[in-house]
Amino acid sequence: MPRDFSLPNSSWGSEMMRMYDHYNSQCEVETEGGEKQEGKWRRLPSYNRLLKYATGGLYLSKMIQSNARLFTRHIRDPGAAFEYVLFVNSEEQKCVCIFQAGHLLEGPPGHVHGGAIATMIDTVTGTHATVLSGPVMTANLNINYRSPIPLGSTVLLESSLDKKEGRKTFIRCRVTSTDGSKLHSETSALFLSITVSHLLLGV
Amino acid sequence: MPRDFSLPNSSWGSEMMRMYDHYNSQCEVETEGGEKQEGKWRRLPSYNRLLKYATGGLYLSKMIQSNARLFTRHIRDPGAAFEYVLFVNSEEQKCVCIFQAGHLLEGPPGHVHGGAIATMIDTVTGTHATVLSGPVMTANLNINYRSPIPLGSTVLLESSLDKKEGRKTFIRCRVTSTDGSKLHSETSALFLSITVSHLLLGV
Repeated sequence: MPRDFSLPNSSWGSEMMRMYDHYNSQCEVETEGGEKQEGKWRRLPSYNRLLKYATGGLYLSKMIQSNARLFTRHIRDPGAAFEYVLFVNSEEQKCVCIFQAGHLLEGPPGHVHGGAIATMIDTVTGTHATVLSGPVMTANLNINYRSPIPLGSTVLLESSLDKKEGRKTFIRCRVTSTDGSKLHSETSALFLSITVSHLLLGV
Repeated sequence: MPRDFSLPNSSWGSEMMRMYDHYNSQCEVETEGGEKQEGKWRRLPSYNRLLKYATGGLYLSKMIQSNARLFTRHIRDPGAAFEYVLFVNSEEQKCVCIFQAGHLLEGPPGHVHGGAIATMIDTVTGTHATVLSGPVMTANLNINYRSPIPLGSTVLLESSLDKKEGRKTFIRCRVTSTDGSKLHSETSALFLSITVSHLLLGV
């Protein structure tokens, strides 16, 4: 079994655990009769290889294919880089991500790199768009950075569907402190639905 | 002496080396009299620690401070992640970056993660803005992704000054194939000039 990176590990701080428990407890609820049933949130597992497509990539040498790793999950040292977990709420067409930023993500001194923040925004909005529309590619990311994120802290990403038009899925995403009091960034994102042939042809 | 990551290593492919030589040869030119003088391009060194600010970061524990590494340079294995070098041309207010994308940067199967591309765009435009305006923070990145970048390939990022208005520096950036024939992305970016106190206060 491949490792599921979205499960708690020893590097997760108290804020990360508190937020995880908050959403995880809503993934399964107990009825009055004591039976368990699906809740409104669902945790998404996360792996560091695209197993399904392991033979893809027309341009890749065999060496690169077998070594390829998902950008956000290529560091195995717990807590060093991206620690995150995604939950989706299909009913409300929302997706949240709890993200603890490790010491290898530095940009401005003591703070998270703008590219690392963009990476998490792309991950969360892209995953959300895929849940809503099937396979997609990022077409536009328009990110307004409002306040820097201190290295080591835990933040909340909230993604919501703006609209769908043909092949286009428009998503909005806010990054805030876990209590919602501080706004770190606001993003509008556009994704285009694709077929596997789009990708293999590099279109 | 800290390692300068922007110098060639054994992982650099022929395209990366050819482009490096192209710009590097224009960093120093010989006069008719055989004397060496500065050319129009200048190579920027690149380190994985912000030595100058090593004591910064109000929110950081001592452990995180001493372990913090620049996001784009935290993998020491040559060729595995971001291999890149920046050259600036002060006369023309341009900056170029040659970027070879390693196997750990995967997003869509066989292609570079949108967040890794955003990371390089932020790095190049942010460095360019700093050269032009002194210390800055990213305020906006608006990235249009036109075609995916195959994992393992080398691309060119070209950054140019759009305009300066007070604290604001507007930069444009194109990512293309090294011969310029294929457009991968177009970006407009906005940076705000800051003082160190802005950063320490988290504004």
